[in-house]
Amino acid sequence: MIGTIAAILTTLSFLPQAYQVIKTKDTSGISLGMYTMFVIGVLCWLIHGYNIGDMNLIVANLITFVFAAIILGYKIKYK
Amino acid sequence: MIGTIAAILTTLSFLPQAYQVIKTKDTSGISLGMYTMFVIGVLCWLIHGYNIGDMNLIVANLITFVFAAIILGYKIKYK
Repeated sequence: MIGTIAAILTTLSFLPQAYQVIKTKDTSGISLGMYTMFVIGVLCWLIHGYNIGDMNLIVANLITFVFAAIILGYKIKYK
Repeated sequence: MIGTIAAILTTLSFLPQAYQVIKTKDTSGISLGMYTMFVIGVLCWLIHGYNIGDMNLIVANLITFVFAAIILGYKIKYK
């Protein structure tokens, strides 16, 4: 239950930033190095969630990974 | 193993932002509503990690929570 709330809150808090970057293509406030670490980190949480069978970790990090990877792609393309 | 890498990467990718905000007290790029959701979300992940006995979730979210709560305090104080 608390895990579901955690998943909803951290995913929702991330989405407006993702929406803004995708809409404006402005990635000037994002560090390439830090964001690359973040994307790989989220992917590792996703795998970790799969390994321990925690659906909250899987769903939260799957959604965050997709949007974070898109942002990273924009950062690389429009840097 | 992959959980430890996940914990290190997402925590490390968050710390430079925390350092910069704490150093400059400039929180203009941060949304109060989104950040409040994030801080509560991280606290929920911490409790969830404790509930399922996952040390990676506990350590990563404990460190992130402390710095995120400090940033939220700065946001409220210097908004």
